[in-house]
Amino acid sequence: MKLNVFLSPLIVDELYFTGKTTVVIDVLRATSTIVTAINNGVKEIVPVASVEFAVKVSGGMFGGQTLLGGERNTKKIEGFALGNSPFEYSKEIIEGKSIVFYSTNGTKAIAKAKFSEQLFICSFLNITAIANHIISLNTDLEIICAGRYNCLSLEDSVCAGMLVSKLQEHFGDLEINDSAKAAIIMYEKFGSDIFSLLQITDHGKILIENGFEADLQYCSGLDILDTVPYYSNGVLKKQNSK
Amino acid sequence: MKLNVFLSPLIVDELYFTGKTTVVIDVLRATSTIVTAINNGVKEIVPVASVEFAVKVSGGMFGGQTLLGGERNTKKIEGFALGNSPFEYSKEIIEGKSIVFYSTNGTKAIAKAKFSEQLFICSFLNITAIANHIISLNTDLEIICAGRYNCLSLEDSVCAGMLVSKLQEHFGDLEINDSAKAAIIMYEKFGSDIFSLLQITDHGKILIENGFEADLQYCSGLDILDTVPYYSNGVLKKQNSK
Repeated sequence: MKLNVFLSPLIVDELYFTGKTTVVIDVLRATSTIVTAINNGVKEIVPVASVEFAVKVSGGMFGGQTLLGGERNTKKIEGFALGNSPFEYSKEIIEGKSIVFYSTNGTKAIAKAKFSEQLFICSFLNITAIANHIISLNTDLEIICAGRYNCLSLEDSVCAGMLVSKLQEHFGDLEINDSAKAAIIMYEKFGSDIFSLLQITDHGKILIENGFEADLQYCSGLDILDTVPYYSNGVLKKQNSK
Repeated sequence: MKLNVFLSPLIVDELYFTGKTTVVIDVLRATSTIVTAINNGVKEIVPVASVEFAVKVSGGMFGGQTLLGGERNTKKIEGFALGNSPFEYSKEIIEGKSIVFYSTNGTKAIAKAKFSEQLFICSFLNITAIANHIISLNTDLEIICAGRYNCLSLEDSVCAGMLVSKLQEHFGDLEINDSAKAAIIMYEKFGSDIFSLLQITDHGKILIENGFEADLQYCSGLDILDTVPYYSNGVLKKQNSK
């Protein structure tokens, strides 16, 4: 079994993913928020790669049941109902709704991987559920980290390393690339205390400055959700509701 | 003092480097070869970002004292006098000559950083010389790793981490980005045995397959050279011959 990690979406072309099985990771906060929203009963999430497209898509396509959500540079976007904090995506607010979702790094990573045959959304919140699902598929895997403004982010790298380690525990040694080896090393260094890790990363520090420390605490919650979001025909849904 | 590491040149724009002090690392093998050639008395090296430009530049600009050197995808380029192995750049062959040099990843990284106010070339061979020179400059620093086909490479990341660690030993805690933290962790994991590291990296394995294991041994030679190559007006020269 071959496994490649990409620590930033910029470094790989979208056509690379054609026919592949791919996992997207953006711990702070897009994939943590997506997993939460899907666990809380959202009908579907439409990830988009630009704010302009979010506004365009939301205009009537899904009727009155559509919400705009996301952030640009950590801030809620003007005219959007929801930001990028998982706490905004409660059952009461989003159950049964369609959400058109944009984030600075996360949804761009999903867009980059859109030609994958199978595409799943991972965070610390649902990492064992994702690992078990990949184990059941028994296929080669690409893991793409959203990173931050095209650079790697420690939190995404550690999450990728944890996922690779879980797969290696099951499959034994895998054929992995240098970035996967780097991710495992970062996981071995920081994986025992995710909340402390999130507080020292570039993105974590900016979120704390903007009043989102509670988001860091929540996003460090290991395996609190059992949801496997998958992407198909332009939307994200719950795997078992396929 | 602020220090940023970029684990791949793709993720940053060339204008970012305007006015900065920058170190370029491509352990296998461009920066190891450049340091060797400059230590062996080459007059100057003209790093170019494309083979076509290498051929164009070499045509008469430097008269009969010009050699073409480099590689594309590990192989010597047709019509080029020299490849990318440091063993080809002996004193007898290159002393006093100008070399127009191209490599798949390394010279692209140098080209990306060309607007830097000061630009230096680092490998394991001259890492302490580079660290001491940066310490004498006492300035903010950018470290750009050539990586491999836009992804990080373990050997460049470990070399960057070693350089950051040397600077931290002198200056105390620096303000560093996530990629610099990742590089330090990779250095702590692999830094004690560079030759073994080079043998397990993606690029190292391919070089071994192509018969270049001796190059790996040579490129792992810590501080065997005291040369600080710097870039100015389109050419690389020895710092102390400025």
